[in-house]
Amino acid sequence: MLTVESLTVDAADPARLAAFWAALLGWTVHVGAEGEADEGEVWIEAPRPASSPDILFLPSTDQRPGKNRLHLDLRPDDRDAQVERALELGAAPVDIGQSGEESWVVLADPEGNEFCILQARPGA
Amino acid sequence: MLTVESLTVDAADPARLAAFWAALLGWTVHVGAEGEADEGEVWIEAPRPASSPDILFLPSTDQRPGKNRLHLDLRPDDRDAQVERALELGAAPVDIGQSGEESWVVLADPEGNEFCILQARPGA
Repeated sequence: MLTVESLTVDAADPARLAAFWAALLGWTVHVGAEGEADEGEVWIEAPRPASSPDILFLPSTDQRPGKNRLHLDLRPDDRDAQVERALELGAAPVDIGQSGEESWVVLADPEGNEFCILQARPGA
Repeated sequence: MLTVESLTVDAADPARLAAFWAALLGWTVHVGAEGEADEGEVWIEAPRPASSPDILFLPSTDQRPGKNRLHLDLRPDDRDAQVERALELGAAPVDIGQSGEESWVVLADPEGNEFCILQARPGA
């Protein structure tokens, strides 16, 4: 049996990136590895009971060659308000060739990792 | 408020990649987008009550330039047995410069996306 323990993100500045994502999602920041003593790791945890694995930010000096093949899609209660909030927290708009007519908005976190804010659920 | 709706993966062959991950994790495959009519999308869903967002595989012809900055870390009940099973399902060993002394094993899915199988939890 395998369970998803974490979504792990290479980061030039794990603390900064963790702070951005924790603020965006309303999660809690933890420093140091869970049960281990790996320096520089920072992870964020969803409110309990958790509906998501932790997101772990690992220090990395690897250069980022291009677009990630993995990204998070986020569901808002109010899309435009959440896009505005994300931009205030340090996200940036990203042009991946979208037409502007899409129901979702593409942003990037402070290290350039793309994510999408979807439309609110109908009736939400 | 924002919640994580899905981890979304660009895929040359969404059905094949979804089948691999569903088999690996013991999740359920769904075809077509949830509540939408986007062709070619395949997603997998964790057993309910879900402790993880869905993983959504999107058709993409983008070339993959290098290592992903995001990856999944998976917690096994028995690491070596799960690594063997992953290899049988179509995963490949990956050399990211690890020493061989690590507690985790790095593999790649059939489209080259790295993931790690961690050590079993002590006492598990």
